[in-house]
Amino acid sequence: MKIIVDAMGGDNAPLEIIKGAMLALDEFDEIDEIIFTGDEDKINESVKENGIKLKKSRIVNCTQEISMCDEPASALKEKPDSSMAVGFKLLSEGEGDAFVSAGNTGAITVGATLIIKRIKGIKRPAIASLIPGDKKPFLLLDCGANSDCRAEFLYQFGYMGSLYMKNIMKCENPTVALANNGSEDTKGNALVKEAFELMKGAPYNFIGSIEGRQIPFGDADVVVADGFSGNLILKTYEGAAKVLMEALENAFNKNILSKLSYLGVKSSLDDMKTQFDYREYGGAVLLGIKKPVIKSHGSADAKTFKNAIKQAVWFLQTDLIEKTEEEIKSMQS
Amino acid sequence: MKIIVDAMGGDNAPLEIIKGAMLALDEFDEIDEIIFTGDEDKINESVKENGIKLKKSRIVNCTQEISMCDEPASALKEKPDSSMAVGFKLLSEGEGDAFVSAGNTGAITVGATLIIKRIKGIKRPAIASLIPGDKKPFLLLDCGANSDCRAEFLYQFGYMGSLYMKNIMKCENPTVALANNGSEDTKGNALVKEAFELMKGAPYNFIGSIEGRQIPFGDADVVVADGFSGNLILKTYEGAAKVLMEALENAFNKNILSKLSYLGVKSSLDDMKTQFDYREYGGAVLLGIKKPVIKSHGSADAKTFKNAIKQAVWFLQTDLIEKTEEEIKSMQS
Repeated sequence: MKIIVDAMGGDNAPLEIIKGAMLALDEFDEIDEIIFTGDEDKINESVKENGIKLKKSRIVNCTQEISMCDEPASALKEKPDSSMAVGFKLLSEGEGDAFVSAGNTGAITVGATLIIKRIKGIKRPAIASLIPGDKKPFLLLDCGANSDCRAEFLYQFGYMGSLYMKNIMKCENPTVALANNGSEDTKGNALVKEAFELMKGAPYNFIGSIEGRQIPFGDADVVVADGFSGNLILKTYEGAAKVLMEALENAFNKNILSKLSYLGVKSSLDDMKTQFDYREYGGAVLLGIKKPVIKSHGSADAKTFKNAIKQAVWFLQTDLIEKTEEEIKSMQS
Repeated sequence: MKIIVDAMGGDNAPLEIIKGAMLALDEFDEIDEIIFTGDEDKINESVKENGIKLKKSRIVNCTQEISMCDEPASALKEKPDSSMAVGFKLLSEGEGDAFVSAGNTGAITVGATLIIKRIKGIKRPAIASLIPGDKKPFLLLDCGANSDCRAEFLYQFGYMGSLYMKNIMKCENPTVALANNGSEDTKGNALVKEAFELMKGAPYNFIGSIEGRQIPFGDADVVVADGFSGNLILKTYEGAAKVLMEALENAFNKNILSKLSYLGVKSSLDDMKTQFDYREYGGAVLLGIKKPVIKSHGSADAKTFKNAIKQAVWFLQTDLIEKTEEEIKSMQS
């Protein structure tokens, strides 16, 4: 396994990206090489300053960088020697097996679609995020690749999500639900009502609508939404967790007694934090693309980025892409 | 002030509704009378069984009930003697000053629109929920009255929300943001992009897009969304809070030490629970309607319902409806 890593993507690049990649090498023997794309001088400087020992790695030097402000549609064309554009090129040429970046989400989606290309029959790729739930994680897609969707896209997202949960998370007969503004069959906007009708006849395990209130409980293994709503669901969940965790911290910091109390419950609180830590899954997977492309959080630290690489390793350990290809083909014939 | 209360609406009707109304009478001297609509026998039975002493109240007997499964568009027509239809009738005839119900949201929206009617110039009413934020509550609208919206509706929602926060929550120059899948101006689906352009020129304090992650932090006093996304934001926030609070409870219940620790932090945790308790605001207000209509949570208990009545009292203490009428008129001229 050779993993291509965009060393310049995200708020904490290149240091946390490099550290994350080294952590991944420690943890996953399957990885033979990390190929960093980015400014070689900056990478070497960061490595030296922080006393990191690079191993099983090489750097492909790039002279440009794509920022969060670059227009997704044109960024890769305008910056062909950016760490992201070069990363996609290496992936398309087979120099590496998967590409992981914490950079501009829109540009990653465009690059995956135009350079790596969609699986035949797939109408739109989707950004799929594994999210910690009450008892087990669930997959939410699309988290933002497609702001405007047609019903047939949502129908296919259900397919791709179901295959992901089955093959990568080893979830048997995963349940697929449609994010909706009510649990009744008659609910929804025009798009969701149309998608609901299509999904009722789907060969995957469609269980109907799911309300926002039930999503964090993991009542469905796969939650399908258009990229606009899906992004709001994902981020509202993250924001709510952050606000509550901060409030909890303040509650424990109130006085000496509350500070002491913290010690007595620390270990189980740590378990809870781990359970709901979005960093555990490190990032989102672009589904419907011919090769594994992983988008890590823009604010990824080393641990988060390591887990994004874990997603790439999981992906490469299965034949999800081939299976998706076959299923889509059989669906159409 | 005379408040009309739908005694049969919601999962815990009539008992919790009646108890909530009595709590409201205890708390708000402004209320002269509660007018219950509903099955008189059931109400009296519930009152008797639970040893409640009804005061300052009368019951208008109804023979029908609208359930959560009734089709919103036709429910009120098909069940003209339901507690909800009669409640709206009494409100429109001036028998009472405000109507509070924990029943079917869709039917309430339809009733408010068709029986009480929209304020002149308002294109669509919106369900507006006060939500506990990091430091202060914020208003989210629309939370589900309109599954499909046009840009001009969102533009008006900003107006109505701004007036609500100014007049009822005494928030000076409230900030208004558009819920979006990114904070950049170029983000959004087709609807949001169009609304963004309209809102840029709005006379209220429009501050641009807000991501889901920032919504719970209360970065904006008013968050505008179409009813479909707004509902998902509201309920995902509620669901996330519920999942985390349950996990926290489990963490404290793990062993004797953690149980003891709970005692040391209990009071500040209680403060935190109060801060994030959605029951504090009891329900949502229908904005853009000629008289105050409050929709309480379907699962409302007595405290929640009391707070929904509080919303009606707040509403009646201001001249929000007249102000909205004037502002909309001046906006159009």
